[in-house]
Amino acid sequence: MAQNRIRGVLSPVVTPFNRDLSPDPERFISHCRWLTGQNCGLAVFGTNSEANSLSVNERIALLDALLAADVDASRMMPGTGCCALTDTVRLTEHAVKAGCAGVLMLPPFYYKDVTEDGLYRTYAEVVERVGDSRLRIYLYHIPPVAVVGITPKLVERLLKAYPTAIAGMKDSSGDWNNTQVFLSAFAKSGFDVFPGSETFLLAAMRNGGAGCISATANVNPAAIDRLYRAWQAPGADAQQEALNAVRKTVGQYVMIPALKQVIAYYADDPAWVTVRPPLTELNAMQVHSIIDGLKKLDFDMPGLDRTHAKAA
Amino acid sequence: MAQNRIRGVLSPVVTPFNRDLSPDPERFISHCRWLTGQNCGLAVFGTNSEANSLSVNERIALLDALLAADVDASRMMPGTGCCALTDTVRLTEHAVKAGCAGVLMLPPFYYKDVTEDGLYRTYAEVVERVGDSRLRIYLYHIPPVAVVGITPKLVERLLKAYPTAIAGMKDSSGDWNNTQVFLSAFAKSGFDVFPGSETFLLAAMRNGGAGCISATANVNPAAIDRLYRAWQAPGADAQQEALNAVRKTVGQYVMIPALKQVIAYYADDPAWVTVRPPLTELNAMQVHSIIDGLKKLDFDMPGLDRTHAKAA
Repeated sequence: MAQNRIRGVLSPVVTPFNRDLSPDPERFISHCRWLTGQNCGLAVFGTNSEANSLSVNERIALLDALLAADVDASRMMPGTGCCALTDTVRLTEHAVKAGCAGVLMLPPFYYKDVTEDGLYRTYAEVVERVGDSRLRIYLYHIPPVAVVGITPKLVERLLKAYPTAIAGMKDSSGDWNNTQVFLSAFAKSGFDVFPGSETFLLAAMRNGGAGCISATANVNPAAIDRLYRAWQAPGADAQQEALNAVRKTVGQYVMIPALKQVIAYYADDPAWVTVRPPLTELNAMQVHSIIDGLKKLDFDMPGLDRTHAKAA
Repeated sequence: MAQNRIRGVLSPVVTPFNRDLSPDPERFISHCRWLTGQNCGLAVFGTNSEANSLSVNERIALLDALLAADVDASRMMPGTGCCALTDTVRLTEHAVKAGCAGVLMLPPFYYKDVTEDGLYRTYAEVVERVGDSRLRIYLYHIPPVAVVGITPKLVERLLKAYPTAIAGMKDSSGDWNNTQVFLSAFAKSGFDVFPGSETFLLAAMRNGGAGCISATANVNPAAIDRLYRAWQAPGADAQQEALNAVRKTVGQYVMIPALKQVIAYYADDPAWVTVRPPLTELNAMQVHSIIDGLKKLDFDMPGLDRTHAKAA
């Protein structure tokens, strides 16, 4: 495995919004600080970050706000893959110059039925245009959302042409068989495979995986990190089961508004629940069901910033 | 039907690129001039324009180049729907201020399985934020590409809240039954339905449609416009069949690179063939098959700008 690469548990950090739907850098910084304090890496601007509902300038401003607040760039893997090549290049250049550990890069996802050659050309253009030896790209495979996906053949071609820049992938297919195909084919050569859910963390670690990048790490980072570190110790299977129970409870409705509701509840800060359209907030019944379920699991989020707590 | 709205045949204008993949405003202007000269409206920045492979700034620069060249804004319906609300608002504001006849607005298309309420909120936010009585939105339904689509219920809600701003739709479902549902429900109240292919032009006109917005209008605008004007005259069915034959020939492989190859051939200007990744150019066999098929149909593109013709 290549040295000095980011590994372990990363969270696609949820993005807080003000009432006017503008991003809220203050709460964003405080949530990122809480996450890094639990050993959790920052996959800011991922799917669960509503990053695809943010403009390029909004993403750049939020990243700059984190840097200005001394949040550690070596713990960051911002999402930079857009539909437009020029947007992807701009975000990627900015992340590399900021010293980010890597970038998580969606394929261009508007046009469907594109060829492997077209996707190869996209990633190749980005590598060539950014032209920086520090660039580390993590290919982002999330067919349930992006529809356009990453194939083993594409990874093989890219690794051959750009063995340093192509550092790994996130597999959010939700299909363990697919993750295993990539692990078997590429993990030994130093290509870091992160499943997109902690549900597959133990299985991934047993097969040469690099950790996981998971929505639920926004709310349950410490426990996920414990399994990442203790996967070879006795009790790992029981730890995995406990993680699954939390994930199942949080994800019983729509994941993004659910994560925000959980943070709002445990931080006692209702401002957190706002989502940007086209997403919508959960209803009271759904929120109750999630919080009630978490309490039954003795779930907590110790150390959350309570500056904005209603009871503060 | 509402007065002074744009109707008839519009083309999602293909976007020419330089060798470095930057947009080529000169060829873009000349193609737009040729189209308006054939009575064809300019649905610039549509799917067939590779607009989703352009950044917001690139779209704005191209629109400004058209305006600076005195191309008539009242013949334009630029695509402005992006994944990010803030991008959609910025492009829409710019188009309205430029005096464009309307805007063709994709729903936010990254997140899937979004609710009707979430889509309603998206369009409502855009109307409210743009806050300009000149705004005319054409909802863009193209489920084979965007996946996220426009439903009759959504149109009903939007029309009720914003009867002036919500002016019509483009239906690129490729499913006549779907187009008919929208025509039956809304055409009489002044909501302009444009099928996304001239294949449905005659059927649409017979059912209260407003024209069509079609990829093939990039190369065959005059003949499509003739049917639009003569749909009640004898011979309309034969005209429709002739249009279908051209469309079938051009669209036998992938439409966007095919349109560019046809323009390159008839303008004798190979620079036109360039597409941006993730799209790829057609191969020589495919190009030959298309051009050969068009010649058998006595197809031509009279009046094309030949400034860049190799033989010039």
